[in-house]
Amino acid sequence: MFGKKRKTGESLAGLENMIACNTKISSIIDDRLTYCGYDIGEFMDNNASFDEVIYLLWNGHLPTQIELNYFRKELAANSKISDAVEQCLLIQSRKHLHPMSVLRSTVSLLGVYNLNAEMLTSEAIYEQCIQIQANMPTLIAAFSRLRKGLDPIDPRDDLDFAANFLYMLNGEEPSATQVKALNRALILHADHELNASTFAARVCASTMSDIYSCVTTAIGTLKGPLHGGANEQVFEMLKEIRDSDGDVATYLQSKLDANELIMGFGHRVYKTVDPRQKYLKEMADELTRGTEDEIWYQLSLEVEDYIRNAKGLIPNVDFYSATVYHALGIDSALFTLIFAMSRVSGWIAHVKEQKTKNRLIRPRSEYVGLSGLEYEPINVR
Amino acid sequence: MFGKKRKTGESLAGLENMIACNTKISSIIDDRLTYCGYDIGEFMDNNASFDEVIYLLWNGHLPTQIELNYFRKELAANSKISDAVEQCLLIQSRKHLHPMSVLRSTVSLLGVYNLNAEMLTSEAIYEQCIQIQANMPTLIAAFSRLRKGLDPIDPRDDLDFAANFLYMLNGEEPSATQVKALNRALILHADHELNASTFAARVCASTMSDIYSCVTTAIGTLKGPLHGGANEQVFEMLKEIRDSDGDVATYLQSKLDANELIMGFGHRVYKTVDPRQKYLKEMADELTRGTEDEIWYQLSLEVEDYIRNAKGLIPNVDFYSATVYHALGIDSALFTLIFAMSRVSGWIAHVKEQKTKNRLIRPRSEYVGLSGLEYEPINVR
Repeated sequence: MFGKKRKTGESLAGLENMIACNTKISSIIDDRLTYCGYDIGEFMDNNASFDEVIYLLWNGHLPTQIELNYFRKELAANSKISDAVEQCLLIQSRKHLHPMSVLRSTVSLLGVYNLNAEMLTSEAIYEQCIQIQANMPTLIAAFSRLRKGLDPIDPRDDLDFAANFLYMLNGEEPSATQVKALNRALILHADHELNASTFAARVCASTMSDIYSCVTTAIGTLKGPLHGGANEQVFEMLKEIRDSDGDVATYLQSKLDANELIMGFGHRVYKTVDPRQKYLKEMADELTRGTEDEIWYQLSLEVEDYIRNAKGLIPNVDFYSATVYHALGIDSALFTLIFAMSRVSGWIAHVKEQKTKNRLIRPRSEYVGLSGLEYEPINVR
Repeated sequence: MFGKKRKTGESLAGLENMIACNTKISSIIDDRLTYCGYDIGEFMDNNASFDEVIYLLWNGHLPTQIELNYFRKELAANSKISDAVEQCLLIQSRKHLHPMSVLRSTVSLLGVYNLNAEMLTSEAIYEQCIQIQANMPTLIAAFSRLRKGLDPIDPRDDLDFAANFLYMLNGEEPSATQVKALNRALILHADHELNASTFAARVCASTMSDIYSCVTTAIGTLKGPLHGGANEQVFEMLKEIRDSDGDVATYLQSKLDANELIMGFGHRVYKTVDPRQKYLKEMADELTRGTEDEIWYQLSLEVEDYIRNAKGLIPNVDFYSATVYHALGIDSALFTLIFAMSRVSGWIAHVKEQKTKNRLIRPRSEYVGLSGLEYEPINVR
C-alpha cells in the first residue's frame, strides 16, 4: 500500500490507471475478463447459468448442486414484489418517464419498505441481497408491462433466472435460443472490476451505508450515457441509419466529421478487444438469422467495420447487446435496466467485499481557485 | 497531471491523500476551510446568509444585492412540493422508516416527475438545481410533520432560507437566535472538498448521468455512520450518558475499553482542529444557556475533555451540531437530513464543475484472488 502525497498542480483526471482497492471478485488483465478466477469463456463454453455466476460472485466459489438448488429456491421465494412497490411502479409507469429514474426510485423504495433494511446481522444482509437480486427482474418486467397498459405477470418458481424474466416480460414461455441468449448476456454483464457504477457503490458502502443506498447509487451512476446508457443509444443509431436515405458510411462519416461520439465503441480499459463482445456478436447472429431483425445484425457488422477502419476503435459490450436485447422483445428504452438486472450481482458482491475490510473512500481535491478573499458587505459589491 | 501505473501488490486503501480532481469550489489547507477563496470565518464574522453562500458555491462569486434578490425569488418560487411528491412522502412517513432512506427515495422521485429532468440546456439545468435546493427544506419539514401526524406547512416567500425552514418545521416564526444558529450551521456544512458523498456524486456525474441521480447518490452515501450519520449517534450517546448511572468518564472509558468508536471525534483530513467546530460550539452554548437543553452542552464539554485527554482526538463538525439541532427542536432522527439540506448546495456545485470539464472517473482494482480456474460440471464439484 502506498500513499502518494498531494503535489501542487498534479491531479488524476478520471483516476485513470489508479488502483483504488484490492478485489477477489473480478479481474481484467491483458484484455481478458475473469470472475473469481474463471475466464468468462469458461461460462460460455460450458453453458453455465446466470444463477451459478451470481452464487460465484457472492461466495467466491461455484455452487454444488445442493447449494445451487437452495440458492434458486431463495431467489424464487423472494421474487414477488409487494403491493406497495407495485403501486409505486404504477404511478411511475407513464411512457415519458425515464426508466432508469424509475428503477432508481423503486429500488430506493424497497429499502424504505424493508423493515430489516438497517439490520447488520449476516442473516439480514443475506436477505437484503437476495431481495434486491430477486426483485430486479420482477420490477423491470412489471414496469415494462405497466407502461404498455398491461397487467404485470407473477414470477414462476419452476423457471431459471433468464427464462423467468422473459416469461414475466412477454407472458409466454421463451424459446431455448432466447433463454440461452439472455442467460449469456446476463453472465457477460455481471461484473467488470471497478467500472464507475461499481466504484460509486463501493464509495457509498465505505461510509457503512446500507445496501439499498449502494445499489441506488450504482443505478444512478449506470444511467449515464458514458456508462450503461450507451446500449440504448446504439440501437437508436441503428434505427437512424436504417431510416436515413444514405448508406452506413455516409451516416457515420457525417457523425465523425461533426466530432460526435459513436456509442458502443472504445473502452477505458480494453485496448485490443472487449472479450465479451464476440459472444454477444454470436448471439446477435444466432437470434436474428432468418428473422425480420436480421437487418440490425447486418447494419451492426457494417458499422463495426467502418468505425474500426476509420477510427481504429473496437466495439464494446454495448454494441451487439443492443441487437440481442431488441431481438428478445425488449424496448430499447429498457436496455440499461437489463444491464442493471445483471450488474446488480456484481454491485452486491463488491459492496459485501468493501464492508468486510472497510476503509472510508475519501480522496482529496487540488484547489485551483482564488484564495485569501475578504467578505465585502453586499451594498459595496 | 500524472498517471501512476498499477504495480502488483500496491493499492490505496480509501484513496487517502490521493488527488482525484481539481476544484475551484472549496479547499482544506492547513486545517482551514475555504469556499471559493473565502475562509469560513469570513461568513461567520460578517453574518453572511446561507442563500449568499449557495450563490457563491454555484457561481464562484458572492452576489450583488440584485443578484441575491433574484436568486431568493427563484428559490421561493420553487420551494413548494407537488401533490404527487407529498403523497409519496405521506406513504413513507411511518415512524419506523429510516428518514435518510425516505429522503433518498423522495429526491429520486423528484427526478422521475420533473419532465425536464433529462434536458441538458443551461436553463433546464439551472431549474433542476434550483428545484432540488428549494425543495429540500420543504420535503424535510413536511416529512418531519407527517411522521408526527401533523399537516405540512406551506413555505413562505418573505423569510430567508433558515427562517423559512424552521417556520415550516415548527409552525411558528423562529427567534432571531434560532435563525442565526441554523443559518450558521447550514453555512458550515455547505461544502467540504472531496468528502465521500461529494466524491460519489462526482463519480455519478462523470458518466454524464442526470443531477437527480447524482444527488440521490450523495444522499445514500451521506447516510452512512462514517459520514453524515454520525451526528445522530452523537446525540444518542449524550442521551445514554444522561440516562446512565455513572459519570461521563465511566461511560466513555467502558466504550474505549471495548474498542468502540466514539462518534463525533477525529477526521480523515483535519489533524489539529476542525475549523467548523468552534462556531458550532459557540452556538450550542448560546442556544442552550439558561434552558433545559443546557445539560447537552455541559455533557458535550465533559465528553470533549475526556476524549481529548484519553485519545488525543478532536471534536469534528458532528459533535456540537448535535446539541445545536436538538436545541432547534429537530428530532435526532432527522439530524442527517439537515446536513443534507445544506450539503446539497455543495453537491450541486461539484456536479456542475465535474460536468464542465468531464472525464469518466473509472479507477482500477488490483486482483488478489485465484486465477486460471477451470469450470467443472456441477455434478463433479
